[in-house]
Amino acid sequence: MKCKKCNSGKVEDSAPIKTNLCPRCFVEHYIARVKKTVEEFKMFSEKNRVGVAVSGGKDSAALLHVLKKAYPNTKFIALHINLGIPEYSEHCQEKVEALTDLLGIELFVYDLEKELGIKITDFEKTLFKKKICSVCGTIKRRLLEEMAVKAKVEVLATGHNLEDVLSVMFNNFLHGRWDQLVRLKPVLPPLTEEMALKIKPLLRISENENLYYCLCEKIPFREKSCPFSIVLEQKSREIIETIAKYNPNFKYYLLNRFLEIARILESKHKPILTKCENCGFPSTNKICAFCKRISLVKSRNWDEI
Amino acid sequence: MKCKKCNSGKVEDSAPIKTNLCPRCFVEHYIARVKKTVEEFKMFSEKNRVGVAVSGGKDSAALLHVLKKAYPNTKFIALHINLGIPEYSEHCQEKVEALTDLLGIELFVYDLEKELGIKITDFEKTLFKKKICSVCGTIKRRLLEEMAVKAKVEVLATGHNLEDVLSVMFNNFLHGRWDQLVRLKPVLPPLTEEMALKIKPLLRISENENLYYCLCEKIPFREKSCPFSIVLEQKSREIIETIAKYNPNFKYYLLNRFLEIARILESKHKPILTKCENCGFPSTNKICAFCKRISLVKSRNWDEI
Repeated sequence: MKCKKCNSGKVEDSAPIKTNLCPRCFVEHYIARVKKTVEEFKMFSEKNRVGVAVSGGKDSAALLHVLKKAYPNTKFIALHINLGIPEYSEHCQEKVEALTDLLGIELFVYDLEKELGIKITDFEKTLFKKKICSVCGTIKRRLLEEMAVKAKVEVLATGHNLEDVLSVMFNNFLHGRWDQLVRLKPVLPPLTEEMALKIKPLLRISENENLYYCLCEKIPFREKSCPFSIVLEQKSREIIETIAKYNPNFKYYLLNRFLEIARILESKHKPILTKCENCGFPSTNKICAFCKRISLVKSRNWDEI
Repeated sequence: MKCKKCNSGKVEDSAPIKTNLCPRCFVEHYIARVKKTVEEFKMFSEKNRVGVAVSGGKDSAALLHVLKKAYPNTKFIALHINLGIPEYSEHCQEKVEALTDLLGIELFVYDLEKELGIKITDFEKTLFKKKICSVCGTIKRRLLEEMAVKAKVEVLATGHNLEDVLSVMFNNFLHGRWDQLVRLKPVLPPLTEEMALKIKPLLRISENENLYYCLCEKIPFREKSCPFSIVLEQKSREIIETIAKYNPNFKYYLLNRFLEIARILESKHKPILTKCENCGFPSTNKICAFCKRISLVKSRNWDEI
C-alpha cells in the first residue's frame, strides 16, 4: 500500500498500529502531534531548561527523542533513576546512555543504592511485597522532583502515554477520587517555588504509536521486562480497550471529558499541604509517603508503617 | 434454593434477575429501596399531591404501585397520554385503567387526537419519520408538564430506570453535553412557580427488577411493543452492559459519579430561559421544541422546521 500523504513511500504491514502512512510521514505526523500538545497546553517555551524523565522504556525514549527533534534549540536534560534491580536496571541504564549519547543530551543518573543505600528489591521483604510497582512509583515520583531541583530545570516532562493516563483517570473516576483525577492534568504547577512544572507531552499518543516511532527512528530502548512488572489498572485498561473496539474515537473522547472535569474540579479540590517533618518536602501528612517507605526498609521493621 | 432473608420462602429460578430472595422478601426489599431513594433525595413529603406519569409499561406501572404501597397516605394521581398509535395506544390505556382501578387511584388521560387533532403516527410523514421515538419523547415531556399543572400536583414522578438514566448520562458525558447531563438529576426543580418538581424515584432500580416486581405483584402492564420502538442510546447500553459483566457494581458506581458531576456542574450550566412566543411555556428558543413539532404536522409543510 502506498502512503496516503506522500503517495510514494510504502506503508509497513508490520507496523504495531493501523496506519496509512509510510514510516517517514508517520514520524513527521507524530512530531507534529507532540508539538501541538506542547503548544496547546503551553508546556514550555524554547528558552526553558527542560528535564525529561527517562526509564529506558519505549515511551520515555520516544519522548526525549521527539522533544529534541521538535525543539532543537531547547536545553533538555535527561534524568534517570537506577533502581538497583539485578540485570534489569543495568540494562535500562545502558539504553538510556546510548540514547543520550546519540542525541548529545546531558544525563543525570540517580543511583538508589549509592545514594540511599537501598534497592527496589529490598521492598520484597516488606508489606509492599505485592505492591512493588506502586512503591516504585512513589519513590520515582519523589526522586524525579528532587533531581529536577538539583538539575535546575524549570519543567519536568514524563512519558505517560494515552493508555496510562486514561486507565488511571478512569479508575479514579469510578471510585470518585476526584483529587487524584485532577493530579493527572497535562500540566501540573509546582508545589513550591523551587520545584519544577510537571508536564505530560505524550498524553494524547497511544503506547503503540510510541513503539512505532522508536522503531522508525531506530531509538535504543530496553528489551528486557522489569521482573516486578505488573500492568497497573489492568481492569480499567481492559474496559477501555473493549469500548475502543466499538468506537475507535472513544479514547480521545474519554480523555477530553476527563480533562474538562479536571479543569472544573480543580478549584474545588486543592490539597492542603504541609512540610514533611523528616525531609521538608511538601506533603499532605506529617511524614511524606517517600520517607515512610524508605525508613520502613532501613529500620527493618518491615511490617510497620 | 431457600430465601436468604426469611429462610423459608423459595427463590424462583425463573426470576428475570439474579436474586437470593423469595418473591415476598424481594418485594419488601424493592419497596425499601424505593423509599430510601425518595427520602435520600427529599423527593416529596406525604402531604404533597404527587402526579405519576404512567405509560402502561412495566417501569411506570411498578412506580405507581410501589409509591402507593410505600406511602399509603399520600395523594397520587396517575397521568397518561394516549398517543393515538393504532392498537398499541388503546392496549396501553386499558392496562393503565386496570392498574389505577386496582389501586383506587384517580387517572387523568390526555388524548392527543382529541386535544390536539394529531396522532404520533402523523410524524411518519415528516422529517422526523426516522426519529419518532425522539419526537414522541419531546411531546410527552411537555404534555406531562402541562397535565401536572392542570392536575394541580406539586411533584411529577416518572419511571426512568437505572439503565435509562445511565445510558443517557453516559452518552451526554462522552459528548461533553454537560447541560443535558445535569437535566438527568433525580430531582429537577420546576422552571416556573406553577410547574411541578420532577422526580425519578426508580433511578437506582434496574429494568429487570421493575419487571420482577410487576410479576411478583401481578401488576397489569402492556404486553404489546410500540411499533415505533427503537432502543435509544443502544451503543451506550451495550457498553454499560459489557462493563457490568466485568464488575457487577459498575452501574451503581457510574450512577454515583454522574450524580456527583451533576451536582458540581449544576451551578455552571444554568440554561437561559425565555417564554415560547406561541404557548408561553419556558423555552431556550423563541418557539419551543413542542410547538415547532406540532405546527410542523399541522401545517403540512412536512419538511420544514
